[in-house]
Amino acid sequence: MINQTTSFLILSSLLNILFFIALALFIAKKGGISYLFNKVLHIFPKKKSKHFDYPPYYWHKKSQFEKLPLSESDIIMLGDSITDEGEWTELLGLNVKNRGISGDTTERILHRLNTILESKTKQIFLMIGINDLINDGKSVTATLEQYKNILREFQEKIPKTKVFVQSVLPVNNKLYLYWQDNNNVLKLNSGLKKLAKEFNYEYIDIFSLLLDSENQLDAQYTVDGLHLNGQAYLVWKAVLEKYMVAPEP
Amino acid sequence: MINQTTSFLILSSLLNILFFIALALFIAKKGGISYLFNKVLHIFPKKKSKHFDYPPYYWHKKSQFEKLPLSESDIIMLGDSITDEGEWTELLGLNVKNRGISGDTTERILHRLNTILESKTKQIFLMIGINDLINDGKSVTATLEQYKNILREFQEKIPKTKVFVQSVLPVNNKLYLYWQDNNNVLKLNSGLKKLAKEFNYEYIDIFSLLLDSENQLDAQYTVDGLHLNGQAYLVWKAVLEKYMVAPEP
Repeated sequence: MINQTTSFLILSSLLNILFFIALALFIAKKGGISYLFNKVLHIFPKKKSKHFDYPPYYWHKKSQFEKLPLSESDIIMLGDSITDEGEWTELLGLNVKNRGISGDTTERILHRLNTILESKTKQIFLMIGINDLINDGKSVTATLEQYKNILREFQEKIPKTKVFVQSVLPVNNKLYLYWQDNNNVLKLNSGLKKLAKEFNYEYIDIFSLLLDSENQLDAQYTVDGLHLNGQAYLVWKAVLEKYMVAPEP
Repeated sequence: MINQTTSFLILSSLLNILFFIALALFIAKKGGISYLFNKVLHIFPKKKSKHFDYPPYYWHKKSQFEKLPLSESDIIMLGDSITDEGEWTELLGLNVKNRGISGDTTERILHRLNTILESKTKQIFLMIGINDLINDGKSVTATLEQYKNILREFQEKIPKTKVFVQSVLPVNNKLYLYWQDNNNVLKLNSGLKKLAKEFNYEYIDIFSLLLDSENQLDAQYTVDGLHLNGQAYLVWKAVLEKYMVAPEP
């Protein structure tokens, strides 16, 4: 009996030690003691505003966007990191302005939509939703519901602006930094296509252009399976050029 | 004795159970079984290159920069996140191009300098070094040594380009996301000033303009104590405008 108990105890303790080592490695990888300290500090948040957990990058960018003038001849690239990381002015022209913020979700876009709505810009190219699935673990239905609120705002506040609903992009699940079921992305996109029709906006499919034969984001376009390299931006740019209104003479 | 062993066993088993629950929740949040499968597949990474640990963002941006043409009339903003996050074309004009990459250090700048040197651009505004101290834990002396290599490259490969050595910015240590001894930053800056003189480049002090009365990055300019909001970019922009060559008629 004692022998059996002792074996259990040893096994259990070994498991615990293993877990502690794994935890220590995880913390070390994340940034060590300062990461831990920071996390602990944030377990009990102070007065929470609703948007307390948006990162500093969000506030910094939003504040910059509030100070940068937009005009009615501007073309807006609106979205998350995938939009943010593109050098759109260089890719597409002087009046194309980057209003992407890494990490953005449909909720975060809604919360900063005022910086877009104030100026009645000519065109808006919207790509948002993948972080709703990956980071927020939101369902496709909930994401579409929120997306609809964005389009409703556009239709009510800037009815003359041409809005383009861009497909969300596939993920490559063989590269290991992000994981997302591409069938969900497909579902989201078919919902977006419907939504676009409902609002009488054009839907642009970028998803299909970046796929490999196994329905993953083609590895030639990405290092981490989610974000894009220069070659991918050239593919995307070529599609957008067809939709862009020529600047007035 | 048995009682004590039993208590240990119970405690140890409870810890085991707790860890398993935490692990299960973590995996579920990340995407369930297929996420796990995917991670297990990637436990043993393949061949490592020297720069294996540069993040995907670095490679994606570098690859984009390699595909975007630069011309001799261009003005280059070169640096880390603090440069990267500025909408320089909107702030300063059409020929001002953002070549910042978040997380960059002097080493990482050197490793992508080819994308800058190929075109003999008119002006380069360089701000780099804070991540050498904060992320790499490098000494001021080692940082300056590496910085010197960058300036040497400029002088040898693009002697006609006007290079501006910008001060590194202070940190606000009362905001809790980053910590850095501002005396070290001051030491780095006084080294940079000397280096600039040695290479006959102009030194631009932005450090002093963003300080509060306690020699910290003024809280009005930052949320996290390191990065900048829109107001700070307007201060910085006002300085740069004085140094920018008017575009040719």
